[in-house]
Parts: sequence; C-alpha cells; structure tokens
Amino acid sequence: MALIFHERIGLDGRRISPFSWRIRYALAHKGLDPQVIPTRFADVERIRALSGQHFTPIIEHDGQVIHDSWSIACHLEDRFPESPTLFGGPAGRGAARLVNVWSDTVLARSLRPQIYADFIWCIDPADRAYFRSSREAQLGMTLEAYSADRDQSLPAFLEASAPLERTLSEQPFLAGEAPAYVDYVIFSVFQWARIGSPRDVLAAPATTPSLRDWRTRMIALYGGLGDRFEGYPQHRTGPDGRATEQETA
Amino acid sequence: MALIFHERIGLDGRRISPFSWRIRYALAHKGLDPQVIPTRFADVERIRALSGQHFTPIIEHDGQVIHDSWSIACHLEDRFPESPTLFGGPAGRGAARLVNVWSDTVLARSLRPQIYADFIWCIDPADRAYFRSSREAQLGMTLEAYSADRDQSLPAFLEASAPLERTLSEQPFLAGEAPAYVDYVIFSVFQWARIGSPRDVLAAPATTPSLRDWRTRMIALYGGLGDRFEGYPQHRTGPDGRATEQETA
Repeated sequence: MALIFHERIGLDGRRISPFSWRIRYALAHKGLDPQVIPTRFADVERIRALSGQHFTPIIEHDGQVIHDSWSIACHLEDRFPESPTLFGGPAGRGAARLVNVWSDTVLARSLRPQIYADFIWCIDPADRAYFRSSREAQLGMTLEAYSADRDQSLPAFLEASAPLERTLSEQPFLAGEAPAYVDYVIFSVFQWARIGSPRDVLAAPATTPSLRDWRTRMIALYGGLGDRFEGYPQHRTGPDGRATEQETA
Repeated sequence: MALIFHERIGLDGRRISPFSWRIRYALAHKGLDPQVIPTRFADVERIRALSGQHFTPIIEHDGQVIHDSWSIACHLEDRFPESPTLFGGPAGRGAARLVNVWSDTVLARSLRPQIYADFIWCIDPADRAYFRSSREAQLGMTLEAYSADRDQSLPAFLEASAPLERTLSEQPFLAGEAPAYVDYVIFSVFQWARIGSPRDVLAAPATTPSLRDWRTRMIALYGGLGDRFEGYPQHRTGPDGRATEQETA
C-alpha cells in the first residue's frame, strides 16, 4: 500500500497548517505511517500538477489523489475500516461535518486576528511575501493592522469557544470518552494558535479550564504528537536569516 | 414498561417548548409511544414534587424520573438499545453533545428576539403573567422592547445558522443520510420559531435554501409530526379569551 501525505511546512520544517494537523492526527488515530512530503507555499506548481488545485494537505493512496482535509478524513475512514474509527459511524460522521464547518467558518475565523501578525514569522522566509500579499489582499489591510487590537478581539474568540469549554466540562473529549475526528479538527485550530504565535489564547486559566486541560491531553496523544515539531520561533528572522526582533511574549 | 412524558403545552394544547419537541422526535425515532401528560407553567408544583426541579420535559420510566432533555435522550438511547440509535455510538453522542450545547447557547439565544414578543400569545392565558415576569426580569426589559428591532437582529440569527446551511447543502440531514438526535435538537429551535411567531425566520428562500428544505423534511417525519399540533394562533387573545389583535403577518 502506497500512502503519501503532502503536508504544509513553514520555517525549518515547522508544521504550520491546521488542515495538515487534523490529518496528521487522523493518520495517527488510524495507525497509518505515510511517506511525508513537506510542502511549502512555493511548491504550488507541484501541488497543482498533482491535484488540480493549490491547497494542502493532499493524500496519494494507491494511485488516487485526494485533497481537502474533510475528503481525506472520509477517505481514510472508508478505506481503512479495520483501523479505529474517526467518526464512529454515519451519524457521527454527519455531526462531525457540522462541527468541521463551524470550526472553519466561525472558530478559526475568530482566531485569525490573534495570530496573523505573528504567524508570518513561522513561515519559511521565501514564502512570506506570498503569504503577506495573498492575506492582505483578502483582508484589505496589513497583517499588523488586522492584529493590532488583539486584546479587544480576544473576547470574540473566547465567546466562539464557549460551547467547547462547556462540553469539555462534561466529557473528556469532544467525541466523548475517547478522542476522534471532531477533536482533531478543533485541536488543529488551537494548535495553529500555539505554533503561530507566542501569545497563548487560553492564557487565563479561570476562563477556559476544561479547554486548557483538553488541549494538554490532545498535545500528549500519540507520543506527544502536538509537540513533535518546532514551536513558535524564539527569534523572528528576516528573509536573509538575520534576527530582526526578539520574541515579544 | 411504563413510560410517561411530561410535555410542556401552551394555548389550547399547543406544543411550545423546543426541549419537549426534541424529546417528542427522539421518542418517535425510537418507536416509543409514551403516555403524555400535558404540563403548563402553572403545574410547577407537580413538576417540583416529581423531579425536584421545575423544568420540562420529564420522563418517568419504570419508576425512574429523568429531567433535562439531554439526560432524557441519553436514557432513551441506553435503555432502548434495540431501537434505532439516536447518536450512532459513543463518538456520535460526544459530538451531539457539542451540537446540543451550541444550539442552546448560541443558536437559540440568537433566535429569542425574533419571537419573544409573539411567543406570549401562544402560551396559555393563565401562564402569561408568569412567562412575562420571569423573562422580563431575565432580559431587563419588556418582551416587546426585546423584540422591537427584529429586522436588525435577524442577520445575527442567520449568521449563527450559516454552518447549518453550509452543512445541509452537502448532506440531507445534520446526522448525514438519515436524521438523528442532532437533527432533532436543531429542528426544535426552528420549530420553536414556527410555533412561536407568525414571522418566518427563513423567509428569504435564496439565503438559506438548504435549511428550508431540511426544515420541510423534518416537519414531514413520523407522519408529519411537526404539524401534528396547532401552529401560531390566528388571533391573539387576552386572558379573558377576547381577541385583542389580529395576527400581524
């Protein structure tokens, strides 16, 4: 069985993509150990030639090419039915799709201003110009302007997270007693925040105690998978590799 | 097997509670036909004596008394394992709990201003004073003031509903190919809106086409369960039964 995982990477091999993180956890959940092809934004032509679109992650499996993290998760579930289930059956898959949509459109969107100005520094220097120009065109402002009022926009993120905190105060994982794909999707957003910024969005222990404990449990899964790669860079470096400023938090 | 369902009712037996609606659908899903005890707000002492708290729905099952709709759904699932599953297993139950929490704290809350000023007219006249005083104390304003800017607050409800619309554009039910408890929970909120106000919160077909189609399918389930009871009253009547105003939409 040939299984290849095209995974987005950033500075010095950092894993910077929430979409790749949820697939990395899904692969670990299924006990699969694919060949990993680290993929930078600059590798876009290879990705396009392979899949006809420019997003990662992508899975190649026995000659099939699957892109879009949800489609990949469904493919893994359907093609590896003997491995632990990601959804727990059709009804769980349906509900997981709703959680996935909510995560991408509500939760992750409310997180972006918390990390965007920091995030550029964990991207490979040669990818930064692309990241900045594409995101700034989308936002209609600089990354720094978008993230300027982080303290003011943090409550919106915590409000979006409130159903997670409430649910995790009642059960250890979002999928119940054991983690499954809904946990990997939501964790990938918090992991994106961990890797992408030195500021902890869950810094106030009293506000989200259950979410913090769950995040710790999620990081520890699969031999500490959440800490297997480098975290936020200690020194922000320019394209020439020269340190331009120190970590701010 | 003795199974008794204490179900909230309003004016002339109308079913006015989203929490009772999700249990009514769950019972139908399980093929259970309990004895129904219609329960008004005025029946609070009976409910308290039975369950030690004042909310409906309540299930009595072989001498056990279960309150709180989520606990009831879990009880039905666990005690009637041979009937069609409400969650599709542990992972589905976990994700359903998250959807349930989100529905009660985000979706239903954003709906309240759309219906509260109308809702009082589908409550039994003798229950209206209690409903008004308890809700107005909670809101810090009259029901009418709370609902005064409905057109202005509708976008917030539609924005909260956006992940539902998106998910239902991809799959026929929130639980996937067939309805399950996550559908009943979310539908109960839209049913609350249908019963509680003559204004259709999904009035603009182009905005939420998938959500509208799903609502129609949900109403039709179990022999048209969603239309089995009276809808919003054509005439609003005062405590003395005299019509005070005509339906406004």
